[in-house]
Amino acid sequence: MGPGDPDLITVKAARILGAVPVIAFFAKAGKQGHARAIASTYLRDGVAELRFDYPLTVEIPHTDPRYIDAMTACYDQAAEAIGARLAAGQDVALLCEGDPFFYGSSMYLFDRLRERFAMEVVPGVLGMTGCWAQAQAPMTHGDDVLSVVPGTMPEDQLMAALARTDAAVIMKLGRNLAKTRRVLTALGRADRAIYVERGTMADSRILPLAEIADGAAPYFSMILVPGRQGQR
Amino acid sequence: MGPGDPDLITVKAARILGAVPVIAFFAKAGKQGHARAIASTYLRDGVAELRFDYPLTVEIPHTDPRYIDAMTACYDQAAEAIGARLAAGQDVALLCEGDPFFYGSSMYLFDRLRERFAMEVVPGVLGMTGCWAQAQAPMTHGDDVLSVVPGTMPEDQLMAALARTDAAVIMKLGRNLAKTRRVLTALGRADRAIYVERGTMADSRILPLAEIADGAAPYFSMILVPGRQGQR
Repeated sequence: MGPGDPDLITVKAARILGAVPVIAFFAKAGKQGHARAIASTYLRDGVAELRFDYPLTVEIPHTDPRYIDAMTACYDQAAEAIGARLAAGQDVALLCEGDPFFYGSSMYLFDRLRERFAMEVVPGVLGMTGCWAQAQAPMTHGDDVLSVVPGTMPEDQLMAALARTDAAVIMKLGRNLAKTRRVLTALGRADRAIYVERGTMADSRILPLAEIADGAAPYFSMILVPGRQGQR
Repeated sequence: MGPGDPDLITVKAARILGAVPVIAFFAKAGKQGHARAIASTYLRDGVAELRFDYPLTVEIPHTDPRYIDAMTACYDQAAEAIGARLAAGQDVALLCEGDPFFYGSSMYLFDRLRERFAMEVVPGVLGMTGCWAQAQAPMTHGDDVLSVVPGTMPEDQLMAALARTDAAVIMKLGRNLAKTRRVLTALGRADRAIYVERGTMADSRILPLAEIADGAAPYFSMILVPGRQGQR
């Protein structure tokens, strides 16, 4: 489904959405879900919907056995529901924000269903790609290294990861904004860093890292650190 | 223009291609150019074309002053030609393989034109994203770090970059395949590595790294190293 703007799904995804009898998607309980919202423009009338609520999102650490157990059960149930439709001869389109194989829940369903059913993976514009386009921030030139790191890393590991890269994207910012700022400041790279919230969506916010207060970042916000400037 | 398959451009890009009076693109001398080929399906009749030949591609190292001078002149001329159309009130769509801000020539034109003209950057599906979708290789789970590294790096730097990451994409493979294989083998990660050539295009090749011979890789091939497997 790409980064958020419905115009940024692929031509292939749009065609599939207009043809499939069944869609499936994950969403936070009580919310419509970003993937479902993006798809709305393209769905045919009368499409059947398999909605799966995440049992938890950021309430407990993702390493907590209770989180892992709850998510495993959620994925098992979703795979069973999708498998039943496929076994009955109905094609199912599983909606994924961004790209299905880049930090997506869909990978857990892919792993559960791949041996029983034929699956096609339609690549999408990554969330971060939508963000750097909207920020008009050229990211990687020439022989730059780009590293994508979760803000959840311990501070020393985050420092090590960011010290060795030219360009960086720090995902899963949320409560990790102050730590990430300390690391980027220590590395002399805070000045170039760009904060992006809900990139490509109607209510997006893009501003220099210096202008956003610690503690104010939602979980799905990110920081972009452009690489070396081009010499040409 | 996305990774190669014309179906993998965005709905927005398709609409722009069908509307603009002028397109511009880079291509290797004597070739049609991938970006132009991908766009063909969508262009309106009578569109004007600004074609810019790369003066050099892989003949000399990209750090050679002759390479830098020749490319600088090429970008200057391209910016001037595009600027002339824009100044005359015609919109120009600059075609870019993959995404415009991820290792793209378009960044050099963006830098040259940004102060004189309004520009919109339309994000695209990255080449690597198309490759891992086609390879059906889930890349990053949970708190994985992903690093994108050029195969052109010296062996010790390549080792250091790959040692610290969970998932990796090694770009610009070409003559660097044997070196990259040595590094991945030393790190115990060669077995999981996937070789991809012309991903998502009609003549694509995807196979385990172990099955491709050293010296056989074109410049734009890449290696995918999936991250930690999901635990759910």
